[in-house]
Amino acid sequence: MDPLLPYVAELNLVDHHCHGVLRDDLDRTGFEEMLTEADTVSRWGTSLFDSSVGFAVRRWCAPLLDLPAHVRPDEYIARRRSLGAAEVNRAFLVASGISTFLVDGGLWPERLHGPSVFTGSRELAVVRLERLAEEVIIEGATGFPDRVRRALESTPAVAAKSIAAYRVGLELSGERPSDGEVVAACERWLAAGGGRCADEVLSRFLVWEALDRGLPVQFHVGYGDRDLALHRADPSLLTDLLRATEHLGVPIMLLHNYPFHRSAGYLAQVFPHVFADLGLATHTVGHQASRVLAEALEIVPFGKFLFSTDAFGLAELYHLGALFFRRALSDFLQAGMRRQAFGEADAVRISHLIGSENARRAYRLD
Amino acid sequence: MDPLLPYVAELNLVDHHCHGVLRDDLDRTGFEEMLTEADTVSRWGTSLFDSSVGFAVRRWCAPLLDLPAHVRPDEYIARRRSLGAAEVNRAFLVASGISTFLVDGGLWPERLHGPSVFTGSRELAVVRLERLAEEVIIEGATGFPDRVRRALESTPAVAAKSIAAYRVGLELSGERPSDGEVVAACERWLAAGGGRCADEVLSRFLVWEALDRGLPVQFHVGYGDRDLALHRADPSLLTDLLRATEHLGVPIMLLHNYPFHRSAGYLAQVFPHVFADLGLATHTVGHQASRVLAEALEIVPFGKFLFSTDAFGLAELYHLGALFFRRALSDFLQAGMRRQAFGEADAVRISHLIGSENARRAYRLD
Amino acid sequence: MDPLLPYVAELNLVDHHCHGVLRDDLDRTGFEEMLTEADTVSRWGTSLFDSSVGFAVRRWCAPLLDLPAHVRPDEYIARRRSLGAAEVNRAFLVASGISTFLVDGGLWPERLHGPSVFTGSRELAVVRLERLAEEVIIEGATGFPDRVRRALESTPAVAAKSIAAYRVGLELSGERPSDGEVVAACERWLAAGGGRCADEVLSRFLVWEALDRGLPVQFHVGYGDRDLALHRADPSLLTDLLRATEHLGVPIMLLHNYPFHRSAGYLAQVFPHVFADLGLATHTVGHQASRVLAEALEIVPFGKFLFSTDAFGLAELYHLGALFFRRALSDFLQAGMRRQAFGEADAVRISHLIGSENARRAYRLD
Repeated sequence: MDPLLPYVAELNLVDHHCHGVLRDDLDRTGFEEMLTEADTVSRWGTSLFDSSVGFAVRRWCAPLLDLPAHVRPDEYIARRRSLGAAEVNRAFLVASGISTFLVDGGLWPERLHGPSVFTGSRELAVVRLERLAEEVIIEGATGFPDRVRRALESTPAVAAKSIAAYRVGLELSGERPSDGEVVAACERWLAAGGGRCADEVLSRFLVWEALDRGLPVQFHVGYGDRDLALHRADPSLLTDLLRATEHLGVPIMLLHNYPFHRSAGYLAQVFPHVFADLGLATHTVGHQASRVLAEALEIVPFGKFLFSTDAFGLAELYHLGALFFRRALSDFLQAGMRRQAFGEADAVRISHLIGSENARRAYRLD
Repeated sequence: MDPLLPYVAELNLVDHHCHGVLRDDLDRTGFEEMLTEADTVSRWGTSLFDSSVGFAVRRWCAPLLDLPAHVRPDEYIARRRSLGAAEVNRAFLVASGISTFLVDGGLWPERLHGPSVFTGSRELAVVRLERLAEEVIIEGATGFPDRVRRALESTPAVAAKSIAAYRVGLELSGERPSDGEVVAACERWLAAGGGRCADEVLSRFLVWEALDRGLPVQFHVGYGDRDLALHRADPSLLTDLLRATEHLGVPIMLLHNYPFHRSAGYLAQVFPHVFADLGLATHTVGHQASRVLAEALEIVPFGKFLFSTDAFGLAELYHLGALFFRRALSDFLQAGMRRQAFGEADAVRISHLIGSENARRAYRLD
Repeated sequence: MDPLLPYVAELNLVDHHCHGVLRDDLDRTGFEEMLTEADTVSRWGTSLFDSSVGFAVRRWCAPLLDLPAHVRPDEYIARRRSLGAAEVNRAFLVASGISTFLVDGGLWPERLHGPSVFTGSRELAVVRLERLAEEVIIEGATGFPDRVRRALESTPAVAAKSIAAYRVGLELSGERPSDGEVVAACERWLAAGGGRCADEVLSRFLVWEALDRGLPVQFHVGYGDRDLALHRADPSLLTDLLRATEHLGVPIMLLHNYPFHRSAGYLAQVFPHVFADLGLATHTVGHQASRVLAEALEIVPFGKFLFSTDAFGLAELYHLGALFFRRALSDFLQAGMRRQAFGEADAVRISHLIGSENARRAYRLD
């Protein structure tokens, strides 16, 4: 294993997509249920500690809690509880070396807290579009389009997030829906009893309205929890919409992407406003992150790739997301230099682009 | 090349999905036609010995027939014929180190024989669902559902196998069909002249009925012979059915999966009753198996991945399937230990889970 | 980095699919716009020099223009202009070591010139089917089928090229359309104002007619410019057509294929008349070509894989396509020999098959 390149180890990261952290303590089952995208521990599948991310917790998180590497799961959980979630959260968030967090707080807002609660680091909000629609629909279908517009105009968020992949799949049409179509969709939604926003017209409407207001739109793509069907979360299904929205000149971010990370790189190459990352996968694949990141970087321009953790609930995932990202980026750069693809000055520059500058440019953070 | 880890070399394997072995001797064309998923030797494509699995036969099978490594194909075939298929089959089956075989004998039952004929090892049956339907339909559409149920109740098989991927594609609905729908499908089938069972309603019915009786269901997924269209064999297409059958608590096994092995790992992570393997691909990709298995193990929990050969016809494929599996698993574990992902005790444990314990638990073999 | 195997370094390559070269000089923006599949330089995405192929130009092309490796982009462009495109084109084409070019000249015929203009090497034509249809339709719908047949009978081209992936997607039916259906499609086309040939019936008709006349048909598959939707360029969508055309005994070539190169290898294994390559991706992924080529060679028979550059416009792409192909093939063979998959005599033979012999056989070049 090559030593980590010092300029990668010291990168001040911008995490352009993550979620909040649980303030509550967890027992073993609760911890395992947060560890991967599985909702529950399977009676058929041994423990979720027996997965790459589970081993990574035992190896790379345990020492931060003053435990030996590779500690047994029960000891890890016991130690975590005895320290208390607040102390544990602070330790892992600080260790991650992430200085700026863009936080999608739309899932479990009552149980999760932003990283800045624990560390005082810079935190910016990402507004979850389907959730916003679910709040706005309460006042009825009539006037829904304008109420969404006003909400987006007054949001303090620096970006919007679409979970169309979960709700309707990514095969969104490229056409901007009319207000009449949107109201009709709302009426159907209400007639069906309300609840989750799961309508292709509405998903599309929300994206257009966010882009109109200059808000970069993040799309969940690929791997996620069992509520989605993977083949409907292929980023290539977004092609029509990407083509139609290019002239707006507002970034669209393809999140996660695994196992479609090569396709995401293609879209980021050919569409000027498209960017990609490898969040969630980076810590889930753990010690194999180097190969997966290398694939993700095959054809994407280095000015179009970002760091994110997609950490959710467990502060460990911030630490592991950053740690395996640094490891994988360092391995990528060292392999490139060994093959003479670029020299050290360019390697330093690439690491800064991916680690923070691309995010600063795309979200206008400065 | 790292030496093989001793505990991987010595693993007593359970092959949870394979086929029978040809008792007849083969000439060169006959041998090449069994070597890959190609039906015939192409006049445009040189010899099928010029493929990874062909080179693997010359390198790793020849010495077991007392031939030098890398022997010429014609010499290999000649030696194989002079020894006779029974002797050759015995040699390769013993060399594989597989102690238990789950055999899908539904293809070419008149020409193929189970491994136990040659070695006396433990052999358990897998019932091929479409074949069972083709037998049961002979008595007509009326009563078909109950006749299928009775057949499944009395089968000695420990698992069922669905080749829906070949017949209708994997996009099976999640709904359990009513008996009326099933009988109507049978009537359509008979009206069309009978023959192959190729109806989405029937494929779905067969899976539900097998699961109802506690029989784990194996699905052919991904790579196979030319009768399928690869994009219709994507495991993600099964999502609705997996969601609908979870509450039954009976395992579903995704077989082969190449090149969708990452997607299969995702499904095995998020659905408690889903397992995956890399059979067929392991020996077909030959000396490159280590990278492919490493990909397959990125996100799957280690309690949800199984060994299989999918060997069919040639006993060489048992030997090569086991040999490249051991090589790839050993490489995976050594790379993990070098990266400090886990220590040796965990590496031993992972190898036992994947090599046999997961199969024993899922199929209740003990 | 292993030294290049001498017999790979010295391979006399047949490039079975490429485009012409620009005779005009380019400024920096013009150069960047030709470098990848992006049409324009993104204001969001830094420079396209910050991509694998951009770094490859600075490292591996600069020295051929007497510049130091890793030269700054502006210096590279200035030097290129001072030498003049003709001199630059000659230098890179000669350095590529390609002796025979099959040139699809159907895109930008007025601005691009065949490689032989600069080097005197052997050059053979590939006729672009949709362009041919767009010429033939000018005389009207009536008689279109026969006029296409006559044009194909008199073409000097050694192969035909289909860009159905761009125009209608690859999900072509396996049925041969009747002349009546073709004329009806032409009438729809003309009624819609003519322009681009983008009709599934016509794409299919053109392929059948080319094959009927013994012309191997090349399909654009996978990665390309933004005019396509990647999921509609999956080679597996061609399965019905491949099955239906097998009996004609004329090769079908799957071009590029990234990121579906494993699926292309599958099709080349199971269909006797199907071949695959990795053009375009080889130079685009640059220093990572070794992994991607290794994946492409997992299951494809070695008699069914070809070399191509898919170079378009910039002569650098011929040089880089050949250079990274040699590097990747050499790495593949050395890794195989280290794993004892084959000995040196077989490695030499594989390199000749892939580098030129498969193309000579499939296109009957001798």
